[in-house]
Amino acid sequence: MMHALWLENRQLRLRDDVPAPVPAPGEALVRIVAAGICNTDIELTRGYYPFTGILGHEFVGIANGKRVVGEINAVCHECEACRNGRPTHCERRTVLGIVNRNGAFAEFLTLPEENLHVVPDDIPTEEAIFAEPLAAALEIQEQVRIAPGDRVLVVGKGKLGSLVAQTLALTGCRLTVAGRDDAPAGKFDVAVECSGNPEGFEKARRALRPRGTLVMKSTYAGELTVNASSLVVDEITLVGSRCGPMAKALQMLAERAVDVRSLLHASYSLADALAAFEHAARRGTLKVIVYPERSEGSSVHQRPAGR
Amino acid sequence: MMHALWLENRQLRLRDDVPAPVPAPGEALVRIVAAGICNTDIELTRGYYPFTGILGHEFVGIANGKRVVGEINAVCHECEACRNGRPTHCERRTVLGIVNRNGAFAEFLTLPEENLHVVPDDIPTEEAIFAEPLAAALEIQEQVRIAPGDRVLVVGKGKLGSLVAQTLALTGCRLTVAGRDDAPAGKFDVAVECSGNPEGFEKARRALRPRGTLVMKSTYAGELTVNASSLVVDEITLVGSRCGPMAKALQMLAERAVDVRSLLHASYSLADALAAFEHAARRGTLKVIVYPERSEGSSVHQRPAGR
Repeated sequence: MMHALWLENRQLRLRDDVPAPVPAPGEALVRIVAAGICNTDIELTRGYYPFTGILGHEFVGIANGKRVVGEINAVCHECEACRNGRPTHCERRTVLGIVNRNGAFAEFLTLPEENLHVVPDDIPTEEAIFAEPLAAALEIQEQVRIAPGDRVLVVGKGKLGSLVAQTLALTGCRLTVAGRDDAPAGKFDVAVECSGNPEGFEKARRALRPRGTLVMKSTYAGELTVNASSLVVDEITLVGSRCGPMAKALQMLAERAVDVRSLLHASYSLADALAAFEHAARRGTLKVIVYPERSEGSSVHQRPAGR
Repeated sequence: MMHALWLENRQLRLRDDVPAPVPAPGEALVRIVAAGICNTDIELTRGYYPFTGILGHEFVGIANGKRVVGEINAVCHECEACRNGRPTHCERRTVLGIVNRNGAFAEFLTLPEENLHVVPDDIPTEEAIFAEPLAAALEIQEQVRIAPGDRVLVVGKGKLGSLVAQTLALTGCRLTVAGRDDAPAGKFDVAVECSGNPEGFEKARRALRPRGTLVMKSTYAGELTVNASSLVVDEITLVGSRCGPMAKALQMLAERAVDVRSLLHASYSLADALAAFEHAARRGTLKVIVYPERSEGSSVHQRPAGR
């Protein structure tokens, strides 16, 4: 049995009676060292996707004696998507802490061996935790060509927005980041929506020049209303964007090409995971980390949420 | 004074008191020989865009003694869009029969000389009328790479859908055309929405594989509701698509690379333009042409609307 943070019917609760996972053939057992709270976790508690089980898909753990992070999509290698070079879209995939696979707010998880990446020794654990969201930020550049001098807007100053802005800044583009403040209309070649709310989408849409590209980076519950004709008349391109290249993310963390330390706002023990979620959901909070091994009942590190 | 079909407050009416247009410097006076009714015209009567004036943007006319068709965007050459190679998105553009420029359901129109293309002699007028919508169909291939073997779905069996399907078929792709019938889900690399209704959009969306591309070709009044998270999770690309390369369209018509004749459903005199619009709006009707010069009060050619 192990301790874990369990989601069921949109309710989170701590359990101490979850059987420790047994790795299937080809899988590794990972002892979790730290797990990060992502906005997707918070959206899952709001019903974004009907998941029942252990939440958490950003983690650093120990497997086979090595410190590892992991790709969150466990795939079949046989379906059409896998065979056509789109394994993250595997038709039979399970997704760590999101779809049919227990996640990282627990003492142990299992993942296919092939999903694991060894963390270079010079990356501290509380920075390695950013490998997954940093990879998601890098996915944008796998999908959309950003050239030096391009005018790029990032909407959203949260943890994902910050990682996206930092990775885009390295391209030499002319970068603007907008939070709740406004952005000039019709002026940007590319806009990236990281706010996860319809107002942010509308801001990104308005900011684009004709034939501009809007990258949708946030998952959120509910429907979005768009003016279809304006997309046609302005020949706008919308691109949905999800998981990205984790090896490249680890390399950037090792090279300190991005600053993730300033995004760390608080850490909690697993016993305090409910408080950690409340903290993470407060406006202005950036990354909150949960440590399964630390002593119960106390927050070990905390920063003010504001900036 | 001239006869013209006038739109004001979503009401169409025939007028015989519209001053004949006087060409500005650089413009040509075009005597209209034939004008086609587009779905956008019908949407304009439903309030898609608050235009007041003479409708019509598909035409064949006579200018400077030659038979011509014309690009519908009259542009400034000075704004950012023009200077960056996006003249159809000119910030100060007028658009024939759509934005601040009287259109083709009349005896005369004016357009910049540079907008006019001489029609090769071997293209009959009732086929040349398709140059503008055929160019719009070809715009898809300017925006999205379609490779031989790609699985492509066209949603909509109307006149635009038919032109889109015919141009895409020439790429060697594996083409499926869906009207009100269903299409298989998750199987297409590219889907083109030509139905102009939300059900068509939903059908196109569902038909795409992950990382597929949905081309939005129809303008329509009103908002569209989309599941934003599914676009993100499946990394779908949406591309709005409008006006295209008219010279290429004329070349295809001259080479008879596409069949447009079977899309001709009826023709009316300008005096019967209200009846022509009623006919064009009926389900199943393809192209209806209005002839300003023909004798008043009679339909000169009519086919059953069904297929």
